[in-house]
Formats: sequence, structure tokens, C-alpha cells
Amino acid sequence: MSRNALKMVTIGGGSSYTPELIEGYIKRQDQLPIKEIWLVDIPEGEKKLNIVGNMAKRMVKAAGLDWEVHLTLDRREALKDADFVSTQFRVGLLEARVKDERIPGSYGLLGQETNGAGGIFKAFRTVPIILDIVKDMKELCPDAWLINFTNPSGMITEAIQQYGKWDKVIGLCNVPVMAMMNEPATIGKELKDLTYKFAGIDHFHWHRVWDNSGKEVTMDIINKMYDGSETGLPKNIFDVKFFREQLNQMKMIPCGYHRYYYRQTEMLNHSLEEFDQNKTRAQEVMRIEHELFTLYQDPNLDHKPKQLAERGGAHYSDAACEAIASIYGDKKTHMVVSTLNRGALPDLPSDHTVEVSSIITASGALPLTFGHFQPAERGWIQLMKNMELVIDEAAVTGDYGLALQAFIMNPLIPSGQAAKDLLDEMLVANKKYLPQFADKIKELEGQGVTVHDQVAATIDEHIGQI
Amino acid sequence: MSRNALKMVTIGGGSSYTPELIEGYIKRQDQLPIKEIWLVDIPEGEKKLNIVGNMAKRMVKAAGLDWEVHLTLDRREALKDADFVSTQFRVGLLEARVKDERIPGSYGLLGQETNGAGGIFKAFRTVPIILDIVKDMKELCPDAWLINFTNPSGMITEAIQQYGKWDKVIGLCNVPVMAMMNEPATIGKELKDLTYKFAGIDHFHWHRVWDNSGKEVTMDIINKMYDGSETGLPKNIFDVKFFREQLNQMKMIPCGYHRYYYRQTEMLNHSLEEFDQNKTRAQEVMRIEHELFTLYQDPNLDHKPKQLAERGGAHYSDAACEAIASIYGDKKTHMVVSTLNRGALPDLPSDHTVEVSSIITASGALPLTFGHFQPAERGWIQLMKNMELVIDEAAVTGDYGLALQAFIMNPLIPSGQAAKDLLDEMLVANKKYLPQFADKIKELEGQGVTVHDQVAATIDEHIGQI
Amino acid sequence: MSRNALKMVTIGGGSSYTPELIEGYIKRQDQLPIKEIWLVDIPEGEKKLNIVGNMAKRMVKAAGLDWEVHLTLDRREALKDADFVSTQFRVGLLEARVKDERIPGSYGLLGQETNGAGGIFKAFRTVPIILDIVKDMKELCPDAWLINFTNPSGMITEAIQQYGKWDKVIGLCNVPVMAMMNEPATIGKELKDLTYKFAGIDHFHWHRVWDNSGKEVTMDIINKMYDGSETGLPKNIFDVKFFREQLNQMKMIPCGYHRYYYRQTEMLNHSLEEFDQNKTRAQEVMRIEHELFTLYQDPNLDHKPKQLAERGGAHYSDAACEAIASIYGDKKTHMVVSTLNRGALPDLPSDHTVEVSSIITASGALPLTFGHFQPAERGWIQLMKNMELVIDEAAVTGDYGLALQAFIMNPLIPSGQAAKDLLDEMLVANKKYLPQFADKIKELEGQGVTVHDQVAATIDEHIGQI
Amino acid sequence: MSRNALKMVTIGGGSSYTPELIEGYIKRQDQLPIKEIWLVDIPEGEKKLNIVGNMAKRMVKAAGLDWEVHLTLDRREALKDADFVSTQFRVGLLEARVKDERIPGSYGLLGQETNGAGGIFKAFRTVPIILDIVKDMKELCPDAWLINFTNPSGMITEAIQQYGKWDKVIGLCNVPVMAMMNEPATIGKELKDLTYKFAGIDHFHWHRVWDNSGKEVTMDIINKMYDGSETGLPKNIFDVKFFREQLNQMKMIPCGYHRYYYRQTEMLNHSLEEFDQNKTRAQEVMRIEHELFTLYQDPNLDHKPKQLAERGGAHYSDAACEAIASIYGDKKTHMVVSTLNRGALPDLPSDHTVEVSSIITASGALPLTFGHFQPAERGWIQLMKNMELVIDEAAVTGDYGLALQAFIMNPLIPSGQAAKDLLDEMLVANKKYLPQFADKIKELEGQGVTVHDQVAATIDEHIGQI
Repeated sequence: MSRNALKMVTIGGGSSYTPELIEGYIKRQDQLPIKEIWLVDIPEGEKKLNIVGNMAKRMVKAAGLDWEVHLTLDRREALKDADFVSTQFRVGLLEARVKDERIPGSYGLLGQETNGAGGIFKAFRTVPIILDIVKDMKELCPDAWLINFTNPSGMITEAIQQYGKWDKVIGLCNVPVMAMMNEPATIGKELKDLTYKFAGIDHFHWHRVWDNSGKEVTMDIINKMYDGSETGLPKNIFDVKFFREQLNQMKMIPCGYHRYYYRQTEMLNHSLEEFDQNKTRAQEVMRIEHELFTLYQDPNLDHKPKQLAERGGAHYSDAACEAIASIYGDKKTHMVVSTLNRGALPDLPSDHTVEVSSIITASGALPLTFGHFQPAERGWIQLMKNMELVIDEAAVTGDYGLALQAFIMNPLIPSGQAAKDLLDEMLVANKKYLPQFADKIKELEGQGVTVHDQVAATIDEHIGQI
Repeated sequence: MSRNALKMVTIGGGSSYTPELIEGYIKRQDQLPIKEIWLVDIPEGEKKLNIVGNMAKRMVKAAGLDWEVHLTLDRREALKDADFVSTQFRVGLLEARVKDERIPGSYGLLGQETNGAGGIFKAFRTVPIILDIVKDMKELCPDAWLINFTNPSGMITEAIQQYGKWDKVIGLCNVPVMAMMNEPATIGKELKDLTYKFAGIDHFHWHRVWDNSGKEVTMDIINKMYDGSETGLPKNIFDVKFFREQLNQMKMIPCGYHRYYYRQTEMLNHSLEEFDQNKTRAQEVMRIEHELFTLYQDPNLDHKPKQLAERGGAHYSDAACEAIASIYGDKKTHMVVSTLNRGALPDLPSDHTVEVSSIITASGALPLTFGHFQPAERGWIQLMKNMELVIDEAAVTGDYGLALQAFIMNPLIPSGQAAKDLLDEMLVANKKYLPQFADKIKELEGQGVTVHDQVAATIDEHIGQI
Repeated sequence: MSRNALKMVTIGGGSSYTPELIEGYIKRQDQLPIKEIWLVDIPEGEKKLNIVGNMAKRMVKAAGLDWEVHLTLDRREALKDADFVSTQFRVGLLEARVKDERIPGSYGLLGQETNGAGGIFKAFRTVPIILDIVKDMKELCPDAWLINFTNPSGMITEAIQQYGKWDKVIGLCNVPVMAMMNEPATIGKELKDLTYKFAGIDHFHWHRVWDNSGKEVTMDIINKMYDGSETGLPKNIFDVKFFREQLNQMKMIPCGYHRYYYRQTEMLNHSLEEFDQNKTRAQEVMRIEHELFTLYQDPNLDHKPKQLAERGGAHYSDAACEAIASIYGDKKTHMVVSTLNRGALPDLPSDHTVEVSSIITASGALPLTFGHFQPAERGWIQLMKNMELVIDEAAVTGDYGLALQAFIMNPLIPSGQAAKDLLDEMLVANKKYLPQFADKIKELEGQGVTVHDQVAATIDEHIGQI
Repeated sequence: MSRNALKMVTIGGGSSYTPELIEGYIKRQDQLPIKEIWLVDIPEGEKKLNIVGNMAKRMVKAAGLDWEVHLTLDRREALKDADFVSTQFRVGLLEARVKDERIPGSYGLLGQETNGAGGIFKAFRTVPIILDIVKDMKELCPDAWLINFTNPSGMITEAIQQYGKWDKVIGLCNVPVMAMMNEPATIGKELKDLTYKFAGIDHFHWHRVWDNSGKEVTMDIINKMYDGSETGLPKNIFDVKFFREQLNQMKMIPCGYHRYYYRQTEMLNHSLEEFDQNKTRAQEVMRIEHELFTLYQDPNLDHKPKQLAERGGAHYSDAACEAIASIYGDKKTHMVVSTLNRGALPDLPSDHTVEVSSIITASGALPLTFGHFQPAERGWIQLMKNMELVIDEAAVTGDYGLALQAFIMNPLIPSGQAAKDLLDEMLVANKKYLPQFADKIKELEGQGVTVHDQVAATIDEHIGQI
């Protein structure tokens, strides 16, 4: 590592989140001797890259720093001798998200970015690209750290480790961050006075909490969840309460995404209501992004606007900066990250990725042991982790049987002919981004599988708004 | 064991299956030196017990045997010094099965005896009784073997071992028996020339098959499943084909009950059609039973009538006889039974019950190792086995939170308020048979939870037909 | 916990180490609001207790603190409402250690405090007493933390958790402390700039080290072990170098005690030389203790004398103070402690005690995952941990067969008749402290087993010097 | 498989055991449609091959069979299209065995064929050859089964599976065979009326036994071991009784080779006595072999002479024939074989070789689950299995550090300088057969390491007697 002149690379640099990342670096200027920041994007994102890149330059300048900010479409130039590479790209842009939401919705199913059919396809589209990036990194910056916050973050991190054979990676998620930001106040505490233990996989984890007298306060926080306290639910998740009797038995705090599994019917109904009103989360994101990019174009704006916090992914980029600073500075900070299990969760294989409380050192994440789950949570997490493995293997091999197995396993997709039809339609709809499934897609098209007219129309309509 | 004068006890002796059991004993008269057969039932079943018991006496006499056949309502008298105890009772009689089918159906959900909400409640009703029987056995016949084929057979066997602390038990199921009876012919083989390896849990297992040249023929059998061959689907399961692409990837043969999980939508729709037509499997069973008991009353009938084979549970009793003969005679037969895992399926805990190919010896079942599952099947089986553990713990403790967790885990019950309402309504509906949940049921009744009128009416109507 | 008026109890308070403990408390006076320190001992230790206790009082006074120092022979009075209980007693006093060294020596075997036959008997004598203490704690101070540094520390901690069912315990050892004190300087680093990961069991662990650039420096430290650098070998261990080829393959740093297993012949020969010269470590300890107690009697001495550092157990007490301060202050310090595995070392059972790098919080030790060992180390640690379990079970049950199994498993005791004779002689020799083996000892005495004259004579001679 | 014209190949066909193998085939002529038997040997063994090969031809002819018996030095010609390949060769001939016995003996250590330093070197010499054979088989007879009874049988089978990636292998040992031949009579039973469960690794396993009433009779057999009954100890093992107290605790029957570990001192002393008397097992084997080959040369001898039973390996070849007949005939026989664990022994990794009770089918060995060991046996077996893995890895890689680790782990070799000197001397002594260690051996020779004169002399003397 070039210890006094760090080269930071962000792939998907044209993202609306980039100002949070830049702000995160600026906040940590004493910890990170940055020399260059490279923001990389693809041709389709060039316009956004320029807007947000210039904004980044203004932010750096306003902070009185001499960091170079480079904007480029040449990923390999950027990766050359990089120290830290962060990934926050979205394959297929928001158009793909529209499809992930609208097509399942047209089947009466949940349309969501990281759960259900949408989450599976986001993995199918993203895994080949991230493995390509890893291939470049092996050649161009073999000592760099990869900080992934591209969703579905857990599956992407798993693919990087299992198929990319790249160990210097940390997968991030803002869900634990938000829980730790909001929960302490509900019980009159500060975060520094609590010990958090998270365990599970990305977007499917639980946590327990102890105070600084050694007393477990998990149930105290759970109780606060029922009296209206803000406990850090991500912005993009509809708020239905967990059944209290369930949490009383569980004695752990589920993450916000557990709502899709523990209150499946209500979450589905809410999703379908939005579908029927022709609303989608993608649309909302487009609206916010439009607003943000309008702001970013203001040549006088040189700090992160408060509106950015409304995006569901708030704090992701700050978490990334903190992970980078912890690695670089060997800070031994407690963070919740996706990393190799190594026994921390003995109910899951030790050589696969989990999301777990870890100490972040210069040599990476050291997970804290969590111990065994009770049977109910053990059953859930074993199902979900194995489903991740099936999805990743399908994403790498393009094996249709595995893709079908993933759909059938997914608790949010009732198995049967409709599920198979949905799979087929989504394969065809995502054709451009699924080279690994090319043969199967050709076969499906030959059988007349196509994106249904009505869906296609609303997709076009949504995309037109971008 | 009284090696030359065996005392055989059957709890639930008034069952329509008893003639198959008696026939099974008669077929094995050279292997089993039986002195007494005790058929036990409860007062509500006395009439049936007498009918089928007299039929049993005629069968024994016609076979020229001097076995004593005792009919009794006194379970403890029967258990005293027993050598083999088989259990085939149904707590709550067919009335309970009607509820298990009709109440979920009224929520738009699958109503089925061993899967979904019905299966959970069948376990809730049965576990306390079987543990009571085990308690008696510890006192009255501590050396006896318990052969369970009361459903849900796997969970009952698990409860006997984990909570009853009784190891001399074998759990049986006719599903593997039927597969092994039917599949060989589809590929032009005889069973004796094949090696079967089953692995999973009761009603949720897969198998692989090899021929006597060492070649795996699993895919050959799978291929036959798609050309109309009879492969042994139990009578009570609606026949929807598995997706061929799924089986091609899996390279194992799922059991018939997997249809509920792999073709969830079609199985649900079929169940709801029957519901709407006011048909249930319980009804059909009542019709068959009525017919059977009419036959059994014929004082000239002294052999098992062929109509009995139409019942879904055919071959169960014969399997029980074979298990008994294998234990008694140390026959080292290959059978597929529910027994302690002990490493046979390394993806599941070694100290819990699985259903697995085993060698049956005088000291019980010795499972054959199966090895690791692929991720898709591993995820499913880990979910399902853990759900079984949650159900059994709820059944023993009466913990409502655990019951709710079981409902939420169950892949056939979409979680949410309706699922919770269903749980509550079924608790109230089964009040008489759920002493462990008495406090919660009282609380629910206080909140006005009741069996909905329309459902109650159809239940009465069905029961009236018994 | 009485958060502003801590009651600290030390069992074995008359130990020569107590001044280090008191010094440790004084150093941490800002972190620990101590009100009372209770030093407990047994009648045989009363004289020492008074000497060292008065020394402790002078130290506290010299530090300008108002802490009460109580000296008592009444353990139960001391334990009443205690906040922290530390244990540093030696059952059978140094007399027992003389036997642990002299009797094996007379068989041509290693005589050592925590390894070989001596270590086994130290566990046999200590386990019943520690379980007695735990029993008292459950009654008198159920919320207290138990900090054990009585040897064999790992087996004692295992017994506390497995048989005492007491989870609020941390087992300590000075071996990792000394490694971390000495190694950094050998590679020109400070401890704070390194990340240590220890894994194994007490007195049988390895470690790896990374620097603050993320580079593993384990091999750098290993290289320094061969150029004469001081790397922290405990004072009581004869210094034979490990084979460099072995460490090159292992790529981990063994602890000092590994010499007994990796250079068995040289360590044995050295031990036998001392035996032949009528020297023992016990003797040396007696000499040092005599010197220390002479110093302690000096009414002007009010600080820990530097001579105490010569004792093998130096830094044990300071580690105990640091563990206490970390728990009380929820400091999240990295320490190497004996605690429940919980998956940290996936090659060992998750529900048993291991010695592992942990984060010490108010709720106890959270182990950091270490991951799998290579086969050579895995084989060793699995043997040694299982031997610990056998020893503990023998210590609790008094089962002679288990004691014999432990002797046969122990790599430092060649199995055979002589080993069995040694076991028998040591049982008889330790009769007074082994109530659990009373029947067997009586039987052995009936068979004429006795402590051999020559050994008995040297024991007397040694004890006479105390 | 050429089902009506089997080609059987035996590598090491010039072995004195071959007549037992031929007899085994003849006994099973109805089960095995043999067409050709190929006996393969190396040039150094040509004379023996011709003697024993002609004997084999006479045996076949006397049995009235038209089987072709081919004698060849061309392994590849023999392997072409083979159906079954059995391996019974000894790399380095008896000369190597002399070294395995004499060199350790000169260090005061056990000299034994499969245990201690000798066993390690036998593996070092044999693994490269067996992997070479596997390589040929992949090319010349990819569907053949490999039946290995070359010692150390377990490590060789492990190497075939792990490094050779060849799954169609069964490893055999005569130790379980002899136990099952001799033990039943001691308790007045026949083998067919007992159920045996063996578990462990080759030459380090235990077993339990049940009778045909389901009663465990393990302790009955153990009791008989102390009243002079013959329980099947292999001929080559000095008979020292196990400590009864140990077996009472263990409640399992150790194999004969356990004596080396459970009565280490007595076994060592006996070995050293023989060493001092200039006797070795190799010498004795030479004597017997000389006698046997003299007999075999008799042109009138056409059946296995009874003297062959005196060799330690009696019944090995018959076990091989039975394994072959079971595979060919899909006999589902119970045999104790080295095969992949797959969960049968959950205390050992599922993907490594163990020796375990199995059902032998056309598709290979299906292990019966044994379940968990108690801690004492668990510790031993985990040490020993991991040592096997270290030895195999050293044998494949030629890594000196691993070889040293194996010596240090081995419970029969006290670690230290002498052990390392022994390793070095044995490397040099076996130079001709250890190409994988060539560089290290050259380095050692450069340092003056050589076979000590006195040892070299006795080796020559012994070899001169061959």
C-alpha cells in the first residue's frame, strides 16, 4: 500500500451517493492521506458522472484539500495501482430496477430490489461484472482492498470470495448502521455504552445488545419498537410491526428486511398497492435522483445536501469510508460487515460469507463469535444462506435449473408454473445484462417468451421519467 | 423380550388399517412367535374397535393360528409386559382432520393432514398423547420396541426421542415403500436388484438409486416420471409433475409430498377447488372407512379386503410388521425409517431424527451414511427440520410464541396477520385436545376468537357424515 | 453490581503474588471504584495471609486510598455480595507440587506443574474445590464475576462452566501476556501497532501476528526466535529451541509449553537432570517465596518488590486486574482468555472452553474467530482438548478408568504398567486432597500401594525447606 | 464392466499371499465369471512371480477352471481394460522393511511396519507408486475398481481418493476379519447372529457388538479377553493385555494395534528385545516366505498350503475376494473397509477416509453411521487421522517440514533431536524410493547424514538371508 499517497477508486462514481462518500473522506482527512480519487463510470452514466464529479471537486476544494479528483470511463486506468476500490454501481441502471419491480408485480408478487425475484435478478446481472472487476484488480492492483456496497451486497461479496478467489474484500450494508444510530436513544443510551452483536447474512440478520453494566438490553429495545420510537428502519421499507409474541420468543432484534418474511402478506399487499397505483420505489428514487442531480449542477454547491439522506442507502458511503479508514489505520473498530464466517456462526459453513459484528484491522475483518441460533432462526438463516449459494452459482454458470431452484426456494415466490413463467419473462427482459444465460434466453425467445405488453408499457413509461 | 411368546400391542387398534397389520403378522407367522395381540382404543372408538377386532379374530382363526386377540380400552393393561407396541391412533378422530382441512381452506390456504397448518396442529394434538404412552411404557414394558406410524410420523418420533427420552423407537412411513414398490418396474428392474438411498425427514426426503452393476439409475427413473409411468405417488396427493429442469439439476427423486413445496401454487389451487366443492380428503376417507367398516362387519369376511389398498396409508402396516420382524429376527433388512441421524446426514444435527435408509437389526436401525446435500436441498431440509424442532417444542411447552414462529417458518403459510388469525382460530377449534395451550386458548376466547360460523357449519356437516 | 463500591475477593489471598494484584488495582484506581478487598485463605495459610495481607494494607495506604483490606479464613463471609472473585489458590500447597514433580521423576518421567502426570493431579485436587466455591457463589454472590488464574487454568475454567454451570467466568494465563510484552520489540514494533490472534487451549496455543499495514509478521517474529531475541518464554520453562523446519511449515508461533511436546526428549532430560540433582521447580519456588515473604515482612515495604517478577507466574495478577477493569468498565480490550469456544475454533466443540483472543466487555469475553487449523495442529489440539475433558470428568466423578485413560492419552506419559503404577502411587500420595477417589485409594492401599520410600524421603526433605 | 468375462489384475502378484487370493477366487467361482487373472510384478520380483504364478496356474487347473493366468512385468498391459485391480505390493521389498525395523530400533524406538517411524516411511515409499498406478488406471481402465490391501492401507486409500481423485476404491485390512472370525465363539455365538459396528481408521479402530436379541455383548467379549480366549489378535502383534479398567470405561473393543498406544512401554520393550537379539519381524517373514516359496516350487502342489495362515496378513486376500464378489454381485455384504467417511464418524471430517462397517454394493461401500465417540477415543482418533493427513501430504509433496511434523505428532516417537536424526537417517536410507524428497536427501547427505555402520551391517546381514 502506498502509505502516504492513497489512490481511491470508486466504480459507479456517477452515483448520487458519491457526495456522501466524498464527505466521508473529507471528515477523515486526518486518517487518510489521500492523493487521488478516481470516479469511474460507464458511457451511459457519463453525464451523471460529470455532474457529480464536478460537485466532488468543489467539495474537495472547499475543504481546502489538494486531492486530485479524476473522472473516467476507463476502469482499467483507474484501477492501476489503486489502494482502495469501492463499488456502488447498478448494472442496467434504474431501468433494470423498474423491471425488477414491475414484472414481479404483474404476477401479483413482490417487486423489490434485493428480495424476491428482483433481488435474484440483481445478483444475476451484477455477479459477472464484479468478477470482471476482480479479474482486473488481480492484474492491476493486486494489493488493493475492495469495499463493496453494490447490492445484493452479501451475495456479491460471496461471489467475490468464492468465485473471484479474492479475499481482500469487505461487504457493507447500511442497515446495521442505522439500527446502531437510532436504537441507543430509545433506551436512553449512547452507542459507545452498548455492545452490539449482529449475526446473519446481508439483509437477513438479527442482533442482540448489552449495556455497559453487562446487562442484556435487547428486550428493552424491542419494547421500544412498540411504543412508537424510531429504531432505524431503512427509508425504503414499509413499516409493519413484527408480531410481539414472535420477538418475545426470539429475544433478538430482526433487521428491517425481515418484514418481508415475517409479515409477508402485508408487505406484499403494500407492494401491490403501489404497483396498482403505478408507483414503484424505482420511480421514487428517480424523483429524488432528479432532484439531487439538479442540486449537484449548482456550481455553488460544495457540500453534501441534506436531501441525500432521504435516499434509502444513506450512511452506506459513510460506512465505506469508515471501513477504509479502519483498514488503513488499523483502527480495530467494531463494524458489521459481510466477510468469511470462519466459525462465527457455527450453524453456517465456515468458508462462506456472513454478515457479522467484526473488528476491522489492517488485515481485514475479524468476526466476533456469535454462537448457535435457536431452531427457528437457524432454519431461516440456513435456508436463506443456501439460497444465496444457489443464486450465485446460477449467476456464474448460467444454469437454468439452478435459477429455477432459486426461485422455488425463495420464500417470497410461491413455487409453480407462474413462478417459472416469471423467471422466463425476467430472463428475456434482462437479456442485455445476462450473457451467461444467453443460450437459454434464445431458447425462450424461440418459444415465444416475451415481456408482456402492459408491463413493457409501464416500464417504458417509468424509464421515460428518468 | 419374551422370545417365544410375543405380546404385540397396537394403540389405535380400532383403525381401519388393522386388518393390514394382522395380515402382515400372519404373513410372517414363521418369523414372529406371537402369543397375544392387544388392540387398544379409546371409548369413542369402542364401536370400531369391536368391529375391526372381531374381524382380526376371524383372520387369525382362518389362518389356523392360536394367537389370542384382545380388545381393550385399558391401555395400561395392554402395555403390561408388551414386546412390541405399534401406534396408529388419530387424536381427535376424523373430526380433527376435517378441521385441519376446512379451517386453513377458509383462509385460502392448504388444508392437509401433515403439511401446512393442519400438519402443525396434528403434531400439537398428538405429541402430548405419545409422551403419555411413553411414560406408561417406561413403567410397564421398559424393554419393548415402539413402532410409530402415527402421523406426522417424523415429528412424533422426534418427540419420543428428544422429550420422551425413549430410544427403542422406529418411525415409519409408507411413502418410501411405495416408491420402492413402483419405481423398479419403470426401468425394467426388480427391487432386489437396486440399491436405494433415501435421505431427509418424514414426508420431505429425496432418494437416489443404483442398479446391480453399480450404475446410478436415478435419472432413468426421473425420465420415466415424465412418460406416464406409475412411480408410486401416495393416493392422497394430487399429481402435478415436478419441473423437469429442477430434477435435472437436483439429480435426486423428491418424494410425493415435495409437490406441496415445489409446485405450491398448483397444489394450493387444487386444495381450494376441493374446498369450494365442499370436498375434503377427510370426507373421502370417511366414505372409504364407512365402506370398509361395512365390509368388516360381515361375519364371513376373514381376510383383508382389497378396498383397503385405496386408503392413502396402504403399506404402512405392512412396513410396521416388517420392521418388527426385522428387529425380532435381527434380519438386517434395508428399510427407510425415522431414527436418530448420528451423522448419516451431516448437514443436520447428529442427535435429531431423520428419515433415512437403514439396516434394521435386533438393536434397532443403523442408518447408512448419505453424505452432504447440494445447497438447494440443504437449505430446504435445514429449514424443514428446524421447523419440526420448533413445532415439537411448541407442542411440549404450549409456548404461543413458538407456535407462531412455526406458522411463520412454514413455507405453505404466508406469514402475516391472517396466518396469526388462523393459528388463533385453530387453537380455539382444537381446544379439547390441546391442554398444553389451555391458558392461551382461554385468553383468545376472552378476546372473542371463535371458529367462524361458516367453517363450523361445514365441519358439523362433514362430521355428521362420519 | 454495586457500581460505586466494589467488593473484590481473592481466594488464596496469602499467595506471594498478591502484591502484584494489589499493585494492579492501585494502577487502575481511576477505573475501579473499590471499597473492599477481601483476602481469603485456609488455616494452613494463615501465617502467609497475615504477612502478605499487611503488606497489601501498607500498599493501599501508601497509594493514599481508603480501600478496606480484610483478611479472613471464612470464605463464605468474604463471598457475601462480592462483585469480583479471583482465585489463585494451590490445593495441597507447595507440598503437593513437590509430589507432582518428585513422584513422576522417580519413574523417569517429567515432573511438571501443569503438564504430564503433575498437571493431571493438580486438576484432580483443584476441581472439587473450585466447584465448591462456585456452589457458594451461586448462593452468596450470584451476580459476581469469577476470574480464575488457578492452574491448570483451562481445565479449571472448563470445570466451572461445564460442571459448575457458571458462565460468568474468565480464565487467565500469563503466557500470552508475556509473548505480547516481548515479541513486538524483536521486530521493532509496539504492541499497539500489532494485531494478535491466539488460538488453542491454556498452555497449548499458537498465535499469528499482523502489523498495522495488514502484513502478517508471524514469520518475522519466528525468525527472531533464532537470533537470540527475548520472545517471552515463561521463567519456569527450560529453553530449547523449536525446530525451525517445523515452525516454517506451521507458520504460527507455539507457546512456551509446546516445548514439552515438540522437544519432548530434551525437556524430559532436563527435568530428570534436575531430579537427579534433587532440584525441583517447587524447591526454587520455595526459595523465592521464602525470600519474598522475608521482604513482605518488612514493615517499611509498601510496594511490589522487583523480585516478584522472577516467579513464573508474573503478570498473571496484572492480567486479572485488567480483565476486571475491562468487565467493569466495558473497555472492549483485546485479551487472550479461557472462555467458551462458540465457533471461534471450528475444529473444537463450540460448547467447551478454549483459550482465544477475545474482546472483553461488561457482558464477558467475546472470542474472535480464528478459523480452521492445518491438520498437524488440528490433530494436536483435538487430542489435548479431549484429554482435558477426560481429566475434568475423572476429577468430578472419581472414575479410575477415566483417570487411567487420561494417563494413557497424555503424550508425556508413555502408556503401560509403569504409567499405571505411577497413577496409583500418586493417588495414594494425594489421598488427603482426593475425596472423589477415596474408594479407589482405599482399595489401592489394601493392595499395598504406597509412596516409595526414597521419594517419600525427598518429599519430606523438600517440604522441610518450606 | 465386462460382465461375463472379468479381467482381474493383481499388482504385486509375486507375493506369497497370491495363493490365498487364487483360492478366494476359486471358492467364489459361481459368483465371479473370471476370464483372465493377471499377476504383475517388477523385475526384482520376477523369480517369485514365476514361482507363485505357476502355482496359481496349477490351482486354477486343479479346480477345473479355464481361467487364463498371465504373469507379466508390464503393468500397463495388465491394466488395459481391467475390471478389478488389487494391490498388494511392497515398495522396496523386504529390504525396506528391515530398515523400517532396524533403524528405529537403533534409536531405542519401535520398529514396526505400519506404526511409528516405519509406518510413516512405508507410506512415503508407497504413495508415489499408488498414485502412478491410479494415473495408469484413469487411462487404461477408467471403470475398474481398485481393491487396495497394500499397507499402510488406510493412508494409501486416503491418498488414492484425496490426491489420486479416484473414488472407485476400497481399502482392506484383515484385522476386523480376524476379530469377527474369533470373537463370536468366545461367547458361544456364531458371526451371523451378531451385529458388528467398527469405527476408526485402519489399524486404529474400535468395535462394538450386539447379539440377535438386540443386547450389546461388547462387555461379554471383553471379559473373555481376560480368561485366555482367542479373540483374533493378528500374528505379528506381541500379546500384552489391555488394562481392564480402561476397557471397562471405554466399553468398546480396541483393535490389536492399539497395544502400541495403550501399552506403549511393554510393546517397545518387546520390540527392543527382539532388536537386541537381532530378530525382526522382517526376518521371521523372510523365513516363512522362504519356506512358502520352497513349497510353491513343488510342481505337485496345487492348493494353498496351511503354512500360509501363519503369515500376519492371513485373510487379507480372502477379504479382497469377498469385496470383489460383493461389488460384482451387488451382494450388500457387511464388511469393514477403508472408505470415505461421509458422516459415519461425525467426529472426523466427512470427506476423508475412515475404516468403518459398511454395506458393499455394486456402487461401492456404504458406511453405517457409528455416531460420536466419547472424549478419550475422540481425542485419539482425531490425532491419528490428522497425522495420516500430514503423512500423506508429506508423501505427495516431499515437504520436509511436514515429515518432521508427522514424526513429532506420532505418539510412538518421542519428539526431539533424536527423532529428527532418525527422520534424516531414514530419508537417506530410503533414498532410492523417495524421489519426492530428493532435494532434501541430497542436502542431508551433504551434511554427512548417513546410515550408521552398525545398522547398515545388520541390514545387510538380514537382507543376505532373503
